[in-house]
Amino acid sequence: MKATIFHAPGDLRVEKVPDPVIKEPSDAIVRVTHACICGSDLWFYRGLTPYEPGWRTGHEWMGIVEEVGPGVRAIRKGDRVIAPFAFSDGDCEFCRKGLQTSCIHAGFWGMKNDGGQGEMVRAPYADSTLVVLPQSIENDAAMLKSVLPLTDVMGTGHHAAVSAGVRKGATVAVVGDGAVGLCGVLAARRLGAERIIVLGHRAGRMELAQGFGATDLVMSSGDEAIGRVLEMTKGGAEAVLECVGTSDSLNTAIGICRPGCRVGYVGVPHHGSGMDITKMFFQNIALHGGVAPVRAYIPELLADVLAGRLDPSPVLDLTVDLAGVPEGYLAMDTRKAIKVMVTL
Amino acid sequence: MKATIFHAPGDLRVEKVPDPVIKEPSDAIVRVTHACICGSDLWFYRGLTPYEPGWRTGHEWMGIVEEVGPGVRAIRKGDRVIAPFAFSDGDCEFCRKGLQTSCIHAGFWGMKNDGGQGEMVRAPYADSTLVVLPQSIENDAAMLKSVLPLTDVMGTGHHAAVSAGVRKGATVAVVGDGAVGLCGVLAARRLGAERIIVLGHRAGRMELAQGFGATDLVMSSGDEAIGRVLEMTKGGAEAVLECVGTSDSLNTAIGICRPGCRVGYVGVPHHGSGMDITKMFFQNIALHGGVAPVRAYIPELLADVLAGRLDPSPVLDLTVDLAGVPEGYLAMDTRKAIKVMVTL
Repeated sequence: MKATIFHAPGDLRVEKVPDPVIKEPSDAIVRVTHACICGSDLWFYRGLTPYEPGWRTGHEWMGIVEEVGPGVRAIRKGDRVIAPFAFSDGDCEFCRKGLQTSCIHAGFWGMKNDGGQGEMVRAPYADSTLVVLPQSIENDAAMLKSVLPLTDVMGTGHHAAVSAGVRKGATVAVVGDGAVGLCGVLAARRLGAERIIVLGHRAGRMELAQGFGATDLVMSSGDEAIGRVLEMTKGGAEAVLECVGTSDSLNTAIGICRPGCRVGYVGVPHHGSGMDITKMFFQNIALHGGVAPVRAYIPELLADVLAGRLDPSPVLDLTVDLAGVPEGYLAMDTRKAIKVMVTL
Repeated sequence: MKATIFHAPGDLRVEKVPDPVIKEPSDAIVRVTHACICGSDLWFYRGLTPYEPGWRTGHEWMGIVEEVGPGVRAIRKGDRVIAPFAFSDGDCEFCRKGLQTSCIHAGFWGMKNDGGQGEMVRAPYADSTLVVLPQSIENDAAMLKSVLPLTDVMGTGHHAAVSAGVRKGATVAVVGDGAVGLCGVLAARRLGAERIIVLGHRAGRMELAQGFGATDLVMSSGDEAIGRVLEMTKGGAEAVLECVGTSDSLNTAIGICRPGCRVGYVGVPHHGSGMDITKMFFQNIALHGGVAPVRAYIPELLADVLAGRLDPSPVLDLTVDLAGVPEGYLAMDTRKAIKVMVTL
């Protein structure tokens, strides 16, 4: 089969690799039909986080089950399944708490594991990791595209909103106009936020944010943006979603908090300096979140997507085939695309 | 009257100052009978935070009402009252949410306001700030001493425990064996923690922690302490109370968290460097807390103290009179006393 291989920053190649085989009784082999490129993939693409030559890429994918191990019960050959970006055993203390990313057997797709940006994946703990999609959507390309972001960005935006404690009627701010920030807007609206202020830079994405339910757009940054939000909200938002992961974005998020506010942070932290803990302390601002336990959220979000109440697919604004994956990274790296869908 | 005045780091003097007078209709004038020296007072005493010459000191006090302004309804002359370390109007958005430290009219005792380490205090917003104590304890010196820590340290330890989400049956760790850490042990036990691990250095305080309900004592620090707690708990505590306020203590607190754990932090932050946000991110560790809204907690904690179910008074291990305040600071600075009570 073919899969995307990391060679060096900026150098990804689609190459022949051995077909995956069942190694453990709980494995499944899945033929990938759809995958994505994630904003967090850009960290290694840009050489900002370590990634070893030869490692696979792609942690967002869905596909059709080709084969299952003898221990697999809930998943069958021919099922269409969606995968969260981490696999998990479904049985440990953390899985039972809905924190599957901390599963004692957790692993992420890509790196030494098979990646979604390839033709096939060996999926460990298939029963607990994969979620079967209804047969009825099999030929509905638009619906499949709407489901695809549940692999990561929609669940991650939802985790930011849940972590920030978004409630009905709340005034919420979202820092970041990337795919996760945009999904954070959808999630905040879904949880009943009345006012959703988005802080971002790019006009096209901000328009999309408005389409997703944002009520106010702030296109400045740093102290100017903080001042504007504090003024608009008369003292800060009640819940803030931090969807970038830099020191600046985190301090902007803290800066626009009302006393007693919670920052739901889901941007993979790449922090050059510290956060403004003094403001946090004196205003009882909490920091909640982290890597999203997307597996826990798929069932409820999927129900809304299937019912037509939730549609994150507009964040996928460029589609490539497997050979086009390197070009897809380049499009995201140069901000020509918000997020790339890979169809196989 | 006499009051303690800050002159320079290490130089506090008890001097004559004008008697306070009613300035606003909601004021009360209270004659202080008991006060404390706080661990956080040591920051300015050591010159580590700015404090201006001439400022008053002391934010923990109780006493007898001498006079009330024409707008005061709930407090009367002759009442024994206890004050939380911050005054608040009782009526704003944040007071109504129980976050009185963020009151739009909040202020702390000391500095430009009257301080508790003096004979009298003008108390703004007397009705909402002060809590009247029952007449029945007036001649019960031991009970008065048990009530006194509700001005700050007991409420602050409780805030750490509440912020950390301590639940019945939980395995909890407390970082710090100062008065707040010790009160954190009491608070964790009161909220039903089954196992309470205390990280500290001083044998006498650790013994007191055991008397307060600590089940395990860890007297190492840094990585060694982290390693021990991770081993003892097979992966970390479910809730951690950070009761110091340095980078090291916060990173120790984060280091001993189980995935999904919350750090309740109440140590006034004096951070040299950043926190380990990467661990926080990948294990969904939350940071909750800040300056304690002690006013919100006084009623429930007071009920337990009056009923004999809660007694933080052992943290007050040295008593001085007003003239002895400078000596009291020295005793705390040199760790000869955990916490000093001032009787007037």
